[in-house]
Amino acid sequence: MKILVTNDDGIDSAGIAALKKSLSEIGEVTVVAPRQEQSAVGHGITMQIPLRVQEYYINGTFFGYAVDGTPADCIKMGMRNIMKETPDLVVSGINHGSNTAINIIYSGTVSGAREAAIMDIPSIAISVTNHRVKDFSYAAGIAKMIALKIKEHGLALGTLLNVNVPDVPEDKIAGILVTKQGKSKWDDIYEKRTDPYGRDYFWLTGDMTDVDTELEYDQVAIKNNFVAITPIHFDLTDYETYDKLKTWNIEVSKNENSS
Amino acid sequence: MKILVTNDDGIDSAGIAALKKSLSEIGEVTVVAPRQEQSAVGHGITMQIPLRVQEYYINGTFFGYAVDGTPADCIKMGMRNIMKETPDLVVSGINHGSNTAINIIYSGTVSGAREAAIMDIPSIAISVTNHRVKDFSYAAGIAKMIALKIKEHGLALGTLLNVNVPDVPEDKIAGILVTKQGKSKWDDIYEKRTDPYGRDYFWLTGDMTDVDTELEYDQVAIKNNFVAITPIHFDLTDYETYDKLKTWNIEVSKNENSS
Repeated sequence: MKILVTNDDGIDSAGIAALKKSLSEIGEVTVVAPRQEQSAVGHGITMQIPLRVQEYYINGTFFGYAVDGTPADCIKMGMRNIMKETPDLVVSGINHGSNTAINIIYSGTVSGAREAAIMDIPSIAISVTNHRVKDFSYAAGIAKMIALKIKEHGLALGTLLNVNVPDVPEDKIAGILVTKQGKSKWDDIYEKRTDPYGRDYFWLTGDMTDVDTELEYDQVAIKNNFVAITPIHFDLTDYETYDKLKTWNIEVSKNENSS
Repeated sequence: MKILVTNDDGIDSAGIAALKKSLSEIGEVTVVAPRQEQSAVGHGITMQIPLRVQEYYINGTFFGYAVDGTPADCIKMGMRNIMKETPDLVVSGINHGSNTAINIIYSGTVSGAREAAIMDIPSIAISVTNHRVKDFSYAAGIAKMIALKIKEHGLALGTLLNVNVPDVPEDKIAGILVTKQGKSKWDDIYEKRTDPYGRDYFWLTGDMTDVDTELEYDQVAIKNNFVAITPIHFDLTDYETYDKLKTWNIEVSKNENSS
């Protein structure tokens, strides 16, 4: 099994090291990851400036390729220029912090996996629900287990699995649930400050408003100590509205010249 | 009608000027747009560095607020800090270049409208299919017409309309179609160059592979000179795979300690 691994916390983060170690037990792992943290970059790609790629070593041992771009850039670069063969699987993570509900839209971790899904490669995004995780080994084991499940069952083209693992001791894990993207959102607040030169600047802060209550939603599942697995795709068409719009009688208004 | 306008080409672009002019005929327009071009930023938001906001003038006349961030930042900032009342509508554009098929994922223009949809505000993303558009007035008229249609019919919470207008003379417009997100993707190529210091760098290039053939897809509609209106939402759950995964028998493997 050839596995391409990326993340959004940067190639030097603990999460990607644990992921590489675990996946190396079941396949040949190539790491292509951002040189610097790329959290909340959404599905950005680098087009206006050129990309650079550097080999990255840990204690003198080759670890992977560092790209000065986004997770989506890393997957494109890994697939097109670095790996000699198409990978069987792409895994993005392990992210420091959960990626559930509306955060899936903003997530760099998910965008790495999504870029693979766009290229018809089965993929996994995996996150742990804490920004200060001490031990990624349990989540790394979950990633390995799900990778083997994908190998066994296959995955629909264009679909990725977004996995969130609660940061609790292993014996507190309640189980694993297949979930849906929650509907909880951010209540943004911009904190206003003034710089030493008298000019205002703003920090984005805020709280997540919890609107989901059922265990079938990712956000609720992880709060109840379940590992949540949400299948995600990139067909954004709203089919319900698609049907409704056809009754709007939208017509070209100023097109008298055509016949 | 209170209308918040943003884009991803930057506050000084011709497309947003035409949009503001046209929408001012039907409502009170507030412009909050990126200070610099933000193409292909996906749904990125700025969290690691603070945002700054500046008033932007054209020939001494106030035009709007320039934010040194992404289109999603601009909508958050416009809604939370700049506008005194919640807008009735958000419009993002007019983009120089189409946003169809897989490009919807990468698009800064669409992310501006999507951020509004996340906040339950009806929104429109509008683009013209040419990077060197000379006259945005037709597309600006289309934006106005669709804004009035939304006012008349309402729009489901969480849905935005992604509109693409062919850059052809008005009498060549074939009509308006309600469409689906096309399935065409990019065949990426990284063009390798060497800098004056002997180091490699890579430019992302490539061609779109046309896989869609039916007029019901955005990409095909605009090629045939139709204005394409695609309803987009942000529930990314793949419900088909959701049902399928439940048959995978995914279980916690190393949880013997819990009882």
